Parts: sequence; structure tokens; C-alpha cells
Amino acid sequence: MEEAYILLDLTLVILTAKVLEELMSRIKQPPLLGDLMAGILIGPTVFGLIKVTDNVKAIGWLGVVLLIFLAGLETNIEDLRKYSKPAILVAIGGVFATFSMAYIASIFLGYSWYTSLFIAVILAPTSVSVTVATLMELNMLRTKIGETVIGAAVADDIYAMILFGLVYSLLTGGSHIYQVSWIIAGLAVLASIFILLKKYSAGIMRILIGKSRLADAPYTHVLIVGLTIATMTAFFKLSPIVGAYFAGLALSPLLRSHHLESYYRLLVEFISPFFFVYAGLLLDPWSALVGLNLSKALETALVIVVIGVLGKVLGCGIAAKLSGFDARSSITVGIAMMPRAGVDLVIAVTGLSLGVLSMELYFSVLMLIYITSFTTPVLIKILLKRE
Amino acid sequence: MEEAYILLDLTLVILTAKVLEELMSRIKQPPLLGDLMAGILIGPTVFGLIKVTDNVKAIGWLGVVLLIFLAGLETNIEDLRKYSKPAILVAIGGVFATFSMAYIASIFLGYSWYTSLFIAVILAPTSVSVTVATLMELNMLRTKIGETVIGAAVADDIYAMILFGLVYSLLTGGSHIYQVSWIIAGLAVLASIFILLKKYSAGIMRILIGKSRLADAPYTHVLIVGLTIATMTAFFKLSPIVGAYFAGLALSPLLRSHHLESYYRLLVEFISPFFFVYAGLLLDPWSALVGLNLSKALETALVIVVIGVLGKVLGCGIAAKLSGFDARSSITVGIAMMPRAGVDLVIAVTGLSLGVLSMELYFSVLMLIYITSFTTPVLIKILLKRE
Repeated sequence: MEEAYILLDLTLVILTAKVLEELMSRIKQPPLLGDLMAGILIGPTVFGLIKVTDNVKAIGWLGVVLLIFLAGLETNIEDLRKYSKPAILVAIGGVFATFSMAYIASIFLGYSWYTSLFIAVILAPTSVSVTVATLMELNMLRTKIGETVIGAAVADDIYAMILFGLVYSLLTGGSHIYQVSWIIAGLAVLASIFILLKKYSAGIMRILIGKSRLADAPYTHVLIVGLTIATMTAFFKLSPIVGAYFAGLALSPLLRSHHLESYYRLLVEFISPFFFVYAGLLLDPWSALVGLNLSKALETALVIVVIGVLGKVLGCGIAAKLSGFDARSSITVGIAMMPRAGVDLVIAVTGLSLGVLSMELYFSVLMLIYITSFTTPVLIKILLKRE
Repeated sequence: MEEAYILLDLTLVILTAKVLEELMSRIKQPPLLGDLMAGILIGPTVFGLIKVTDNVKAIGWLGVVLLIFLAGLETNIEDLRKYSKPAILVAIGGVFATFSMAYIASIFLGYSWYTSLFIAVILAPTSVSVTVATLMELNMLRTKIGETVIGAAVADDIYAMILFGLVYSLLTGGSHIYQVSWIIAGLAVLASIFILLKKYSAGIMRILIGKSRLADAPYTHVLIVGLTIATMTAFFKLSPIVGAYFAGLALSPLLRSHHLESYYRLLVEFISPFFFVYAGLLLDPWSALVGLNLSKALETALVIVVIGVLGKVLGCGIAAKLSGFDARSSITVGIAMMPRAGVDLVIAVTGLSLGVLSMELYFSVLMLIYITSFTTPVLIKILLKRE
């Protein structure tokens, strides 16, 4: 009968996720917030119907690696081409301001240097799907503001991943000369692979696919390369998540040249709800400090949300102003860069499993995701409609 | 580092599977034989690189349920329409002959009545992908022989599933009046659901999809219905595999009416290699009797292979003759119905996990799969080319 319960769990996950996705899309919110909510509802936070066992964690972690590879793969570097200068500036401004403000605030909240570094990395990236949907609704996606934000979001994920890779190595690598040189060797190998992949992937793939008799050759070969690199990264004690992301990024031109977009889109659509439900399941306020010390948890959440919002609005806003946007447009760009719910959540989940992130910090990240997602469209509409 | 090993395992599985798939397709064999071989190679039988832990079993089992649902979903009942009388006769002939011969042979080999029933159910279905490929190559798929075989394969899976459901209940249900009535209630509920689904699924889906704002609505709703029914079946102590299969079958007309074929094809292509690798991993001759008692294992395998082949050739052949085929065509139909590697393997894997099937029987089933797959195309070509 144990097997029947696994099936029950799976059915419960999909059913709850889809009902709440439906609800979210009716209030014009991204479906993934529904998935996250589903995890919070059926997980230990509310009903406690599903237990996050070690098995679930292992599968969840595998899903995260796969998903981040797909995120890299689906990144269109071309999005950075037009208005690349303002986009890169906006990204750097946002990442720098948020990272440093978050680090300082966490130290003041009494967290250790490594937890503070970790939370700073989590707040650094942006997830602009809410912004993109809002701009599309206003028919303003293909404006200078729209293109800059899309480009900045691409650059911003890349910077956040580099930062995450460095912080991860700092936390898990150890300080012995042997350990450090092993990590440096790993970085060198990874960087060489990245450069070689970017340069020769098209040629290698042409040979592999040309010689293959399998119908699924182009899809699977891309996936195998990504998984192999992620595995190598893990054995160099670097984060496999970083390896998977950059492998995806290096291979991303193949997606367009081999017309694989729709295949990978389906794969992402199939896997990604499970990741967000899983992220919701991981919230467990009662077994952790949050339940015992509610005021501390709320105080932390308040600080994290304010820093997460201000870091982007100020950092990106000032950078936009310096790139020649007028004041109102600069604020709009800053607000457009506020939302989270992508790479940030992946890093937060990794932080939990490393034991670096405490439950009230995880709770704060989820709060930041919901608050920015709900407020960004409203604020963008006010700012752009008055124009 | 433990997480790195999960990633390594996954990479190893995909890489080995694809290399051997490639090899199989070069010798004109179905790729799934390569996947199965990959599991045997990296599993305990040869290199022992991957251990089948309880986690792996749980995931594998979930994959089996999903895959059998998809198998039901992809079944085209329309394939039975043309030449339905000979097809149904051929299916009944093959299932009846193989089932009874296998049961008697197993009893003579010294197995208990329930193991004998189980092995009889395993040998009953057919998997005609090798036959279909061969007939396509000869450009003879749309002949009377071709259409009859395709139709018979559909009918044959359905009969095998009904038999499996009955045997499963007999083995796991217990004999107390309460248990028996619970199972009968379950069968009644399942049958009613099947009938209601077949009748109203189109209407229900139209409402659900019409009201839904989610882009993936048609795909996911179909999946949710399948999973829910499989879960219900499990709680009635019936086999969730049977529930999933018939739920898929009842919903299969939706696949064509909503143009979901290509989506589900991709899902099947993505999941099915993992199932066959998993089935290969489960072979563990050294820890079981097979290693200790090789002559007994080979004797069993020989009997099972001969019965598996003869049951189909005689049962289907005689039925084909009775339906009006000439002698040579009747033998061709019988041989075309020999191959296994579908529902049979799913039932065998379930038998292993129930502890009903011993390792030498599992080994025999794998032998039957390889031998029939390699010989069928050769024999069909000889028989049809002389004509």
C-alpha cells in the first residue's frame, strides 16, 4: 500500500498546483505563484499532507539542476544586443546595490558572514516574467524600457550565477591549499569548456546529429552534454547548478539553430510546476525558529523585502538615469526589475539544503517573491499610463 | 557530495542508454532493447555501477504507472475497426494458448499456482513495434495481414490487462469476505468510471478546457484524470497499473480530438528510456538463485522462451487460419505476434516488486524479449518475400 501513497502524493501535488495556477491566472499573476502556494498549502506550513523525505529532496535537487540547465538553454543572448549598454549598466547597478545592501543588512540582523553572503546572492537576480506580461498587456514590450529590462534580466542572471558560484566555493571548498587549488583547477576547466562549447558546439552537434540514427538525437545530445558538465562541476566541488546554467548558456544558440525551442518549452512546462511546489513544501515554519519567534521572523522578512525592493529600484533606477533615461522612466525600469521567482528561488533552495539559510530567511525570500509579484504590475501601470 | 553521485548516476543512465540505442538502431532493432541492455550493463548483472535503492524503486514504480497510462492513451481503438473479427480472434487465440500453456509449463517446472498464474499473464500480451517496423520496410503494413496484426495487438493488450487485474486481485486481495467485497466494489466503481469516462469525457473536457485560463490545460487535465483514477484503483486494492491503463484507454479519443498526440509522444519518448533502463537494472542474477543454479535458470529460460513463442505462433496462427487466412499467411500472423517488450515487461516488473516472480523467471522474460525481437523480422521477411 506504500506505493499507493506515492501515487496519492503525486496526484495531490498536480491537482492542487493546477487549481491554484488557475486562480492565479485569473488575478493576472504568474501560474508559478500558484504552484508555490500549493506547496505551502499541502506541505508542513498548512495541512502537512506531504512529507519532504530524503527521497523527495534527492529528486527535487535533480529537478533543480535540470531546470537551471534549461533556464540557461532558453536564455537568448541576442536579447542583450539592442540597448546592450543601458541593459548591462542596469543589471550591474541592481546586482551591486542589492548584493551590498543585503549583505550589510544581514550582518546587522546578526547573521554570520557566510549566511549574509548567501542571502545577498539570493536577492541579486531578477525574474521579469511579471514585468514582461504587464508590458505586453500595455503593448509596450518593444519599447526602449522593455528591451532594456529584458536585456538587463539576462545579464543579471549571469552575474548572479557567477556570484553564487564564488560564494558556494567559499562556503563548501575549505581553506586548505589543496582544496583551493582543486577549486581553481575546476574553475579553469569549466571556463575552458564554456569557451570551447560556445565556439565549437555547432560543429560538434552537426557531426553527432548527422551520424545519429535516433529520432530524438538533437534533444538528447544537448541534454547529455549539459548533465555531463553539471556532473563534472560537482566533482570539482563547484556548484553543479552553476555548471548546468553555463552549459545551458553555451549551448543556447543550438536551440534556435536546431529548432528545439518547442521541445524544451514543453519539458520546462512539465518540470517547472514540480520545482515550485517543492520550493513551497520546503517552507516549514513550525519545526524551525519561525514558529517560536514570530516577531523575529517578521522583522527579518520586513528587512529582506525592503532591501530586496530598494536595492533594485535604487540600483537599477540610478543606472538607468546614468544611461540617459528620464526620471520617470528610470523609476519604471527600477520597479520593472523588482520581481523575483526564478534563479533566486533556486539559490534559496540550495541554501536550505546546505544548511546555510535559516527558515525565517527562506520565509522572507518567499514573502519577497509574492509582494514584488503583486505590486510590480500595479506600479508599472500607474507609471506608464500617466505618461 | 552525495548529491553529485545522483547526478553522476543520471548522466551515466542517459549516456549508456543513448549509445546502446544508437547501436540497436544500426542493426535495425528497436531502441528500447538498447535501453534494457544499458540497465543490464550498468546494473548488478555486469558492472554494478548503479544500485537499485528503495528510492529508485519508488520512482521507477511511479514511472511505470505513468507510462502505462500513456500506453492506454495512445491506443487507437480505431485500429480494431477494419478486420476487427480476425483481429479479435487472433488476439484471443494467442492470449488463450500462451496463457494456458505457460501456466501448465510453470506448474510442471515446480512453481506455485500463483507464480504460474503470474508468468502466464506476463507471456500473454504482444508488442508489435518490431513487426510494424518490418512490415513498413516491406511496404506491407496496409495489407490484410498488417491491419489484422495491429488490431490484434490492441485487443491483446486489453485482454492481458483484464487478466492481470484479476490475477493481481487474487494474489493481493486476501480471501476474507470483507476483502473480497471491497475488491468487487472497486471493480464495479472502476467499470462505472470507465463507462462514464468513455461516454462523457469529451463533454467534461470541453467544459474544463473552455473554462481554463492555463495554456497547458488540455494536457494536464487529461493527466490529472488518469492519475486520480490510478490512485483510486490502488485504494480499492486493485492494481493501479490496470486503473491507469483503462483510464488512458477511455480518454484516448481526446488525444486526437484535442491534437495532443505530439505532446504525449514527447512525454513518452522522454520517460520510456528510463523505464527500460530501470527494467534492466532490476535483473540481479548474482544475488539470486540464478548465479548459484545456472542449469536450472537456463532450463527455465528455455521453457519460457519456447512456450512464449509457440503459444503465439500456434494460438494466433490457428485463429488466423479459422478466420480465412491461407496456411502461409496464418504462420506469418503467428510469427508477427511473437515479439514482447511492452505491457509484458511492465507486468514482470510489478511481479518482481510483489515478490511473486523469481529472478530466473525475470531473466527468462528478458531472454524472450531479445530472442523474439531478433528473430521476428528475419522470419517475417523470409515468409513474405517468397510470396
